[in-house]
Amino acid sequence: MPALKQLILSRVGDDLGDIEMALAENLTPYLDLVAEVAGHILFAGGKRLRPLLMVLAARICGYAGSHDKKYATIFEYLHAATLLHDDLVDGGTIRRGRPVAHALYGNPTAVLVGDFLLARSLSIAAETGSPAVIGVIAGITEDMSQGEIHQLMRKGQLDLSREEYLEVIRRKTAVLIQGACRVGAMVAGAPEARENALADYGHHIGMAFQMADDLLDYTADADVLGKAIGADLKEGKLTLPVIHALARADAVDRAWMAALIGGREVCPEDFEKLLRLLERYGGLRATRQLAEDHVRQAKAALTIFPAGEPREVLCYIADYALQRRA
Amino acid sequence: MPALKQLILSRVGDDLGDIEMALAENLTPYLDLVAEVAGHILFAGGKRLRPLLMVLAARICGYAGSHDKKYATIFEYLHAATLLHDDLVDGGTIRRGRPVAHALYGNPTAVLVGDFLLARSLSIAAETGSPAVIGVIAGITEDMSQGEIHQLMRKGQLDLSREEYLEVIRRKTAVLIQGACRVGAMVAGAPEARENALADYGHHIGMAFQMADDLLDYTADADVLGKAIGADLKEGKLTLPVIHALARADAVDRAWMAALIGGREVCPEDFEKLLRLLERYGGLRATRQLAEDHVRQAKAALTIFPAGEPREVLCYIADYALQRRA
Repeated sequence: MPALKQLILSRVGDDLGDIEMALAENLTPYLDLVAEVAGHILFAGGKRLRPLLMVLAARICGYAGSHDKKYATIFEYLHAATLLHDDLVDGGTIRRGRPVAHALYGNPTAVLVGDFLLARSLSIAAETGSPAVIGVIAGITEDMSQGEIHQLMRKGQLDLSREEYLEVIRRKTAVLIQGACRVGAMVAGAPEARENALADYGHHIGMAFQMADDLLDYTADADVLGKAIGADLKEGKLTLPVIHALARADAVDRAWMAALIGGREVCPEDFEKLLRLLERYGGLRATRQLAEDHVRQAKAALTIFPAGEPREVLCYIADYALQRRA
Repeated sequence: MPALKQLILSRVGDDLGDIEMALAENLTPYLDLVAEVAGHILFAGGKRLRPLLMVLAARICGYAGSHDKKYATIFEYLHAATLLHDDLVDGGTIRRGRPVAHALYGNPTAVLVGDFLLARSLSIAAETGSPAVIGVIAGITEDMSQGEIHQLMRKGQLDLSREEYLEVIRRKTAVLIQGACRVGAMVAGAPEARENALADYGHHIGMAFQMADDLLDYTADADVLGKAIGADLKEGKLTLPVIHALARADAVDRAWMAALIGGREVCPEDFEKLLRLLERYGGLRATRQLAEDHVRQAKAALTIFPAGEPREVLCYIADYALQRRA
């Protein structure tokens, strides 16, 4: 599976290089501190999934202009803005192997630089000159903030349903990836059917990526992941592996899991036992299956496009959602 | 001076009623908690200065449509978003006589509801269908976040110059008021000269309002102001009254003031002594004079409009900047 990553990189390496340049060029803060803090979150080895998807979506729709990399920054700036605010909200300490921004620069600076990145993304959206594009991007920010609040409100509550979990991850993660794909089609002037096909693709890989994230929080190698595993559990954040297992556990196991989720400290033995329960009650398997189903639907949405290089790369990216280790 | 406030209210009472309705109607969150927290900051007796200015600017340019109150909400939502984040950044505890949102609902919720309000304002901006309007609003949010960061970076530093102070208050306060006036002209399809005149007017009253705020922090009645006076000093936030006095004080007084600004607690006797020094070195008078100068320039910018009701009300509002007590 590093093979898949290398295969993707061999196809989009130039695009990723151009995206890196565009991210540095379009930030344009007047304060050095803003450049530093924004740089801390922006230039720390992110995958650039969202801008890459916008560029590829534009390409598969025949985009021939020269603004795709610039417009693509919208989605990385927006993503970075939400990471700054979410790390603060979640009380995270490590991201991508480095201390989070609010730990280094303080909460006030992290909040305000997040606001600046959000504003930059909307300024660049305004430069598209398309109210429809701008409306999509403003709508994404509304959905993301409400998804995060929803998740926050329900932290530590054991009655979070599968449906509510799916609604939360749709808003907090999938709408941004979906929006990147949709806007790629829009800036290319694609017909509605193609725009909707790419939006469907984006929605499904967005759901799959978040489920894969939620799985990695239980199954990853902490060194590869760049942060501690079990973070969701510690924060009282219920994700599908646990929701599924809780719904199927017997009274004794359910009570044990409930106490663990409500508690403050999780020792390694307890975490191991939880993993065994997630296996026994099928929480990990069910989550993986649902994510695989989304990957299948993502690829199916692309069948209205002719076979060939751009479609192939988008399919590889869909597969990558489930094969990555960090 | 309650006479001036009553005079303004007698002219714009209906507009303010419509603005209140529009603020309630256009919020549309899907979570009750978001409605509650946004309502806490939005419906706590704000003056509605920014939306009112947009409505009046549109009217003086002959706007005949029915969307002005809706578009005006952009500026109040944006203002409320920055209040939520700024109270958190400044560590404030009381606003308009009530506990600040982050004290009641926690920092995470205050951050995320601020993000939601920012997103709402940009969604409504997108509904104008005008990339130019949207660009102005996105630019405002960039300026405001950078102005706040600039202020934060320089907290407690005695070498803040008059020019730097003016640049900070321009970004953090004046650009939003200026933007409300400019967008009013834009939605009315006004010619450039009128748009620029209203933008000038907005810039100058924005500067005057912030200077008046900074004066009130030293001279207001705390009960009328709805929060403690001397807050800027406690936070190490240097404003023009102090900057002016520091530049003119003799070595002894300057050292005394420097120690007070760097210190943690300010007893009433010290605050009284500081007020006497601000009087002696002309800090209060110079600030008032500069604010008056901005009010004069604001009114002068309006002379390209014919005399009559709308211009008169805008002039009253300019005067009100300096006559208000809270």
